[in-house]
Amino acid sequence: MKKKSNSKLKIIPLGGLEKIGMNITAFEYEDSIIVVDCGLSFPEDDMLGIDLVIPDISYLKSNADKVKGFVITHGHEDHIGALPYVLKEINLPIYTTKLTMGIIEKKLTEHNLLRSTKRKVVRHGQSINLGKFRIEFIKTNHSIQDASALAIYSPAGIVVHTGDFKVDYTPVFGDAIDLQRFAEIGKKGVLALMSDSTNAERPGFTQSERTVGATFDRLFAEHSNTRIIVATFASNVDRVQQIINTSYKYGRKVVVEGRSMVNIISVASELGYLNVPENTLIETDQLKNYPREKTTIITTGSQGESMAALSRMAADIHKKISIMPGDTIILSSNPIPGNEKAVSNIINELSEKGANVIFQDTHVSGHACQEELKLIYSLVKPKYAIPVHGEYRHLKANAGIAKSLGIPKDNIFILKSGDVLALDDESAEVVDKIHTGEILVDGLGVGDVGNIVLRDRQHLAEDGILIVVLTLEKRTNQLLAGPDIVSRGFVYVRESESLMEEARKVVTEAVEKCLMSRHADWSKIKLVIRDTMNDFIWKRTKRKPMILPIIMDV
Amino acid sequence: MKKKSNSKLKIIPLGGLEKIGMNITAFEYEDSIIVVDCGLSFPEDDMLGIDLVIPDISYLKSNADKVKGFVITHGHEDHIGALPYVLKEINLPIYTTKLTMGIIEKKLTEHNLLRSTKRKVVRHGQSINLGKFRIEFIKTNHSIQDASALAIYSPAGIVVHTGDFKVDYTPVFGDAIDLQRFAEIGKKGVLALMSDSTNAERPGFTQSERTVGATFDRLFAEHSNTRIIVATFASNVDRVQQIINTSYKYGRKVVVEGRSMVNIISVASELGYLNVPENTLIETDQLKNYPREKTTIITTGSQGESMAALSRMAADIHKKISIMPGDTIILSSNPIPGNEKAVSNIINELSEKGANVIFQDTHVSGHACQEELKLIYSLVKPKYAIPVHGEYRHLKANAGIAKSLGIPKDNIFILKSGDVLALDDESAEVVDKIHTGEILVDGLGVGDVGNIVLRDRQHLAEDGILIVVLTLEKRTNQLLAGPDIVSRGFVYVRESESLMEEARKVVTEAVEKCLMSRHADWSKIKLVIRDTMNDFIWKRTKRKPMILPIIMDV
Repeated sequence: MKKKSNSKLKIIPLGGLEKIGMNITAFEYEDSIIVVDCGLSFPEDDMLGIDLVIPDISYLKSNADKVKGFVITHGHEDHIGALPYVLKEINLPIYTTKLTMGIIEKKLTEHNLLRSTKRKVVRHGQSINLGKFRIEFIKTNHSIQDASALAIYSPAGIVVHTGDFKVDYTPVFGDAIDLQRFAEIGKKGVLALMSDSTNAERPGFTQSERTVGATFDRLFAEHSNTRIIVATFASNVDRVQQIINTSYKYGRKVVVEGRSMVNIISVASELGYLNVPENTLIETDQLKNYPREKTTIITTGSQGESMAALSRMAADIHKKISIMPGDTIILSSNPIPGNEKAVSNIINELSEKGANVIFQDTHVSGHACQEELKLIYSLVKPKYAIPVHGEYRHLKANAGIAKSLGIPKDNIFILKSGDVLALDDESAEVVDKIHTGEILVDGLGVGDVGNIVLRDRQHLAEDGILIVVLTLEKRTNQLLAGPDIVSRGFVYVRESESLMEEARKVVTEAVEKCLMSRHADWSKIKLVIRDTMNDFIWKRTKRKPMILPIIMDV
Repeated sequence: MKKKSNSKLKIIPLGGLEKIGMNITAFEYEDSIIVVDCGLSFPEDDMLGIDLVIPDISYLKSNADKVKGFVITHGHEDHIGALPYVLKEINLPIYTTKLTMGIIEKKLTEHNLLRSTKRKVVRHGQSINLGKFRIEFIKTNHSIQDASALAIYSPAGIVVHTGDFKVDYTPVFGDAIDLQRFAEIGKKGVLALMSDSTNAERPGFTQSERTVGATFDRLFAEHSNTRIIVATFASNVDRVQQIINTSYKYGRKVVVEGRSMVNIISVASELGYLNVPENTLIETDQLKNYPREKTTIITTGSQGESMAALSRMAADIHKKISIMPGDTIILSSNPIPGNEKAVSNIINELSEKGANVIFQDTHVSGHACQEELKLIYSLVKPKYAIPVHGEYRHLKANAGIAKSLGIPKDNIFILKSGDVLALDDESAEVVDKIHTGEILVDGLGVGDVGNIVLRDRQHLAEDGILIVVLTLEKRTNQLLAGPDIVSRGFVYVRESESLMEEARKVVTEAVEKCLMSRHADWSKIKLVIRDTMNDFIWKRTKRKPMILPIIMDV
């Protein structure tokens, strides 16, 4: 082993360890910082009205002179989605593989950031030097092509980061995961392995993507006399390739629906990651020129997303395609946790329209199960294990695997975002905690919706709002108009007229009494309105709408 | 076959066919109506602030003189939960088995309805006469004891209704399902079979409840040196029995936590459906007197419900029990569709506290899978098949089973709530559609929250509200005060002061301009405020908060 410097390597996750999503990790050695991935996450159920969530990168901004660039493992939203937002805060070069870069460039173009961002495409097997780091890209398999593991060489030792991966011995496109390289690097001596925990609770091996192709073949043969609609993830180009291949084999024309699907397919085709036989793809408008049973529609919406193409078809609001009795619809995906109900709803809607919906055994995961994780641990033989990419339960399951393979308990680190893990060959420990967080994006607003606003939205959602408005004479504090009560989201007033009339009487009385006292300032009046209304409404309805007093003076 | 009258039997589902929940079906023959079950459903995600949903029983009310009573199959909320609300609208006697009646009586007592409601307990094998109907209660198995199938004898023929059921050859308590009786009635000739579709998509047989007991035994043996906490459904008395038995076997004292669990256990014990060995149950306060590894806690909250005992323990807000590192926690339940995320969250929370959470293979379903449905169809041999209890996808799967067993397609009816299916030995068809619906319960309000209020809540939840308030001089329409803008749930004003200031300027200008025109009535002014604000806010934020103009005059 080479002589090590005295400094330690610091691994600092800025997100991605409390849930699946928002992956971003800083690696720091002396005056050099590199950042692996820059993902977004989708809002939790209680983040009402929020479009997406991005990481707080204060730490990077306050160390801007050290940060050398983003190293991106693959092109999924939870690894690249925050880039357009973060790049506006801190301009850094991006290093990644060809297809991943293609997808990122599409995003940067939309956000008008393409020209201002330095980019370098890296091949698998190739290394780049960033400050005191060297980073080698290693071929892996995942549910999107061109995914990479990273070997991060620092003077304090080597860290292997798997990115999101599975072991696919028979991938649809390109090579299998470069297990030999994992072994070689393992032989050199690896300080730490950071590995994908998503499926760490699942025993066995994840099936090859090709098995889905075999299923498509069987299904297309069985349903040769119906139109076939396949919904899947837009970014799973290999899946799309297999649907196209099977359609071609059975003499079907293929239509692609859904903006994100069309986008990714065009990038993948341009860059040579998708091979479409001539005269196979047609425009939606041309569907009518072919017998139904000679057409396939590939679409987004397999998660029941309400605005996606499949949902619009199911709800009969798609402009060009409507579901017909007899259509065969294949949901080639599993529901992402939290989407189960939405997926079930769309299965019901499609079935009610007379379609035959197939949703079992039509998908394989892109993440390694337990046996694959054991394989990677055994090839890499790290001194320290750092489970990443998952909720706590997944990280813990991955830690359990590391332990079962003989890694001492004290060498396994389940980190939290913000933990600063300092490590070298001698020791590893969490030495510090830096500020991290989630920034909420709502429309054009980045970070202007915080906890107070969210709490208000939850309150409004639960029981609505009652606005009590009145006008006072400026000098005398005499009541000139009101109090009037306006409600939204509370009760339908026409049906509860007497309740509202009574509320008005009660609050008028209270306000008038308050005004007669000497020290009736506005905050006192507002307090009286709130208390009176809360009391009255709770007693009568057992509800707690937001009470908002507004006072004007003239 | 006996000579039939000329009238047809009408089967009229008033709920329960579009989703799992709110089961209630009317059977009508000439001047007699009986009602099977009277359940509630839990609110969908978009029913913001709603506590529960009950069926619209207008049809029963407008035929009140015909309706003879409620016949209840078992004591789950989706079959009995609407009774206290519906009985206030239409007072009818209730017929059901002993434990089911015990659970219903607890509810009626809470709603002060016990004295005013006629009730009759029926044994399995026994029949009751209600108008032109005779109803026989047949023993089945389910995830609650004392569940019944019903043989409904009418002059037009026999209908068998399975209720919710599974085939358990080795139940924990009492007898197995009375397959012989199903066969006997089948021999007589059955007009229609209405059967439980919940698991109709699942191949094979549902496991016996006893298999969970075997799992508990293994888990208790493996974790003999830790405290064990088991979360399960409050109403699954057999499950609770097995947890108590296993605890007793391993010398553990048992604590029961969670109000609904305590309630059901007390009813079940009183009525003899639960046998607790002496000195096994202890109070929560006594826990400290025993070594941790000699205690078991049975609790509610297995669905991650935020207010249930387990969630309170996980969040450290339970008054008496806190989770400690090393605790073994068994989730003895599967997530009900829609609860997956909540269950996953609680697994994470408990794991983070150092507990060992076990959630695989610790539950069996209470509903029949495909092979059990085939068995019942084959014993009953109905002329018509009417799948019930499920979403459309489940009903359709059940219909597929009926078809595979040789029932002609035209004799299989996937009904919708409100369909009036008229049938006799000659024919069956949907002859009418009656009014049905969902009534929303929010606090004390039953039905005062409708679509408009819900739409407002959704709007408020999404982007909040901006209130624009101004005061006019009554005669001259002169602007005396305002327009002022108050927002809630939109942006945190302190951080967006300039945006709000600008909005105020824009809207002031627009209002002043409008007031100068001759025909500036209030509706015109409000329209101008809405349009101006919507425009401005959308351009600047890409959001659409609710805009609420309020005008006062003095």
